Amino acid sequence: MRKITFGVANSLDNYIARSDGGVDWLLWTKEVSSITSKFWKTIDTVLWGRKTYEVAVRAGAPSFGNVKNYVFSRHMKKKAAKGFELISRDAVGFVRRLKAEPGKGICLMGGGEFGRSLFESDLIDEVVLNIHPVLLGSGIPLFHRMQQIDLRPIECRPLKNGCVLASYRVEHR
Amino acid sequence: MRKITFGVANSLDNYIARSDGGVDWLLWTKEVSSITSKFWKTIDTVLWGRKTYEVAVRAGAPSFGNVKNYVFSRHMKKKAAKGFELISRDAVGFVRRLKAEPGKGICLMGGGEFGRSLFESDLIDEVVLNIHPVLLGSGIPLFHRMQQIDLRPIECRPLKNGCVLASYRVEHR
Repeated sequence: MRKITFGVANSLDNYIARSDGGVDWLLWTKEVSSITSKFWKTIDTVLWGRKTYEVAVRAGAPSFGNVKNYVFSRHMKKKAAKGFELISRDAVGFVRRLKAEPGKGICLMGGGEFGRSLFESDLIDEVVLNIHPVLLGSGIPLFHRMQQIDLRPIECRPLKNGCVLASYRVEHR
Repeated sequence: MRKITFGVANSLDNYIARSDGGVDWLLWTKEVSSITSKFWKTIDTVLWGRKTYEVAVRAGAPSFGNVKNYVFSRHMKKKAAKGFELISRDAVGFVRRLKAEPGKGICLMGGGEFGRSLFESDLIDEVVLNIHPVLLGSGIPLFHRMQQIDLRPIECRPLKNGCVLASYRVEHR
């Protein structure tokens, strides 16, 4: 089974973007870039919740090359951006089949309601947060109400830019 | 001016207790006890939001000795538990005066709406979170919607029990 990593940059109060999708508060450094590109080599598929996808597209990241990009939305009216494939039905079943296929790791970007359904279906194996030193106070939330998910820490690494990279293994039920 | 530290144990998804006030998920070890008692020597006053106070009283912590305990609530009908003084009006003004008095550090326990009013009045100097390795999924939230608060990291220390102790200095406005 392929590993699914829920990876995201968040504020200390767990927002992934401002209410208007703004990510001006994200700190991007060579260190982060090096960690990201190292991780990128371990995956070949990215799963996008609709809101995170919209934030990324608006921020000018039209798609991530060299990997297969799926955006999940039941109600998205627009065509998915170039490089993205829209999955509008049975997201959980689709991801379950994807996980069972041969291949490299899978990254779930952002989360919200799509993340919740994958957590509650016990499909996520690792959680990696790049926690930024700010309380945004409002915005698009990282987590939604869901079942309890127990975690086992893998690593907690303070970055030079003031962020904390915290990774956890999900304790499968 | 005395330092006010916002200190609390939280889940990775930022709850301070289950919806029913349950804190069975809190991990208490000798290491945590030693960190807490070291911190305890630097303060002489604890400020409690009403919900955190109720969680603590229910968990059998009737008051914290050797420090002055204030519980803040505009609507609490019951008399405050032994060892606590109820402040029901002008919480921000009260805390501002307290901060200007001579004395040791002040700890704000929990937060919620009371925490927000102190953050927004720029009265909090440090944020210390004992982040537990669990996504509770629901419960009493640590943070409420508020203004943006910029932070500067002081320390990020992984504890033996899987928690992460993350402390930040508030960038005053």
